[in-house]
Amino acid sequence: MRIFVERDFAYASYSKVLEKRGFGVKRGGRIILDPVEVLYLAIKGNAKVVWRGRVLSVPEIFEWAVRVKEDVIPYYYAYEDLRRRGYRVKPVEDYLVAGKVFLPLSESKVVTVREIAERRVENLILAVVDEENDVTYYRVEEVDPKGAHFERLEETRGHLVRDRILSDDVRLFERYFYGSLKDGVVCLSLLEGVYLSEIGALRVEGYDIEDLREVARRFDPNFDRRYEVYKDLKLRNFVVKTGFKFGSDFRVYERVESVRDLPHSKYLVTVVDDKPMPTFEVARAVRLAQNVRKKHLFVYKDEKGKNRFVLVERIKV
Amino acid sequence: MRIFVERDFAYASYSKVLEKRGFGVKRGGRIILDPVEVLYLAIKGNAKVVWRGRVLSVPEIFEWAVRVKEDVIPYYYAYEDLRRRGYRVKPVEDYLVAGKVFLPLSESKVVTVREIAERRVENLILAVVDEENDVTYYRVEEVDPKGAHFERLEETRGHLVRDRILSDDVRLFERYFYGSLKDGVVCLSLLEGVYLSEIGALRVEGYDIEDLREVARRFDPNFDRRYEVYKDLKLRNFVVKTGFKFGSDFRVYERVESVRDLPHSKYLVTVVDDKPMPTFEVARAVRLAQNVRKKHLFVYKDEKGKNRFVLVERIKV
Repeated sequence: MRIFVERDFAYASYSKVLEKRGFGVKRGGRIILDPVEVLYLAIKGNAKVVWRGRVLSVPEIFEWAVRVKEDVIPYYYAYEDLRRRGYRVKPVEDYLVAGKVFLPLSESKVVTVREIAERRVENLILAVVDEENDVTYYRVEEVDPKGAHFERLEETRGHLVRDRILSDDVRLFERYFYGSLKDGVVCLSLLEGVYLSEIGALRVEGYDIEDLREVARRFDPNFDRRYEVYKDLKLRNFVVKTGFKFGSDFRVYERVESVRDLPHSKYLVTVVDDKPMPTFEVARAVRLAQNVRKKHLFVYKDEKGKNRFVLVERIKV
Repeated sequence: MRIFVERDFAYASYSKVLEKRGFGVKRGGRIILDPVEVLYLAIKGNAKVVWRGRVLSVPEIFEWAVRVKEDVIPYYYAYEDLRRRGYRVKPVEDYLVAGKVFLPLSESKVVTVREIAERRVENLILAVVDEENDVTYYRVEEVDPKGAHFERLEETRGHLVRDRILSDDVRLFERYFYGSLKDGVVCLSLLEGVYLSEIGALRVEGYDIEDLREVARRFDPNFDRRYEVYKDLKLRNFVVKTGFKFGSDFRVYERVESVRDLPHSKYLVTVVDDKPMPTFEVARAVRLAQNVRKKHLFVYKDEKGKNRFVLVERIKV
């Protein structure tokens, strides 16, 4: 087979086989081919690619393809991987489509979770291509998470010490799983302290809620936004603890009956909003969560100020 | 037992038992106590802590202790953990000492690997205290890593395509484990391309070494420093591949006999230099490496411009 390339497009003579195998778009007696299809047919199908009467070498075809489609390398390797797995994918805009919709992304590409989520493609699957051209797949889904933990706390007292609130009311930990407990001393975070004060379950000696917020902002400039998400998760009836150790903001339990028999936390939650990050960072956070049998939720604020929860999950395709 | 606290120090009457158990420093008829010792004796030993004739509550003792020693909370929880494990630790400057030298660090504390390494304490152990006051231990050691991979490459040719160099010389991958190989096309990174050009093993059509460096800097502003470390590792006879997927700069093999029977890479290597980062980031990188049975090396450049390799390893104490 021969493929003819021009400055910014490529074609082959019409062939039933090509059409049936899902390559290109028919236009008259020709099949117009996408650069990834040209690469695939040249490398896997031994097609000759001709430019001004001369047959191009594989590197030269890559050079041509990069000029037409800058991101062609990750697209090509995702395309090749999916074809090998039996998907008759077609390039459509940014995507590779075969029933499911795949978005190829180089691992080094900088993205925001928001821009991915707001594509509003149902069952979008990211095809993340690493530096060695291996492909890993991640399902993206917006979810509306709900816990099943209900609590009614009585008011108790605490004592601010630097960035912690200490209390000798061990029920805070033993019954409600706030803070940590050692030797009869419950140690609350400022997030917990502000929340408990707000719902009238805690009085911190010498500090009202606004004072506590002020202190918290001194230790964490991003306190207010993190608190918004913390409170949202509490109102969704989750038990919310720090996720610091996992590099996320929170870890979240659907329900805790007893701290002595603690279930696994279900989600890690990271507040990302519009923060740009390389795709590998998203991938790494998800992998880290799945290593400890949790799912990872990324949170951003939409244009109406509402928190959106985006589940990203590694899958096999 | 009664402990008397003043503005910035505390003491108890001399007692043989206290001295024998390793608390405080004898001064005349008194034992001068460190704030963490005061907390420990009050919480674990039921000592009464007296300030101006009044016995303080536990939160009040914490308040006093924070005024004397700002970081007292992580220090106290590391101290308590080590005592419980049978170490008769003593606070000495920043450290807790009992044969071994422990440096307590709150997980949120911002550090540089360099400032930790340059303490030049033999067998330093970091005692990292998380937000819930649990303690994890990390051994820090400067190492001089050496591989055992020797190679003699003949010159071959490549083709620059965006940020990769393509070659059809499959020996580059199959015999020497440079780049990645798919369908007869070897795909090298720019780091590899510059290195191979420098040692005379690669000619990239239309680009000399300086051109390649220029291109590389466009894709990675930190290219020159990463290349320095890459080359250092190559001169140490390692096989060096990208560690991107693990959130590090490189993964490093001591020796690769055959790509078909690839051994586990031994180290992940991250170039940190003087970059400040929260302790939990160091901890996370180490944990991630150990999850995949590798060790993590952090690299910084010393004042003479020499690369220093710092191994940080999670240990049980």
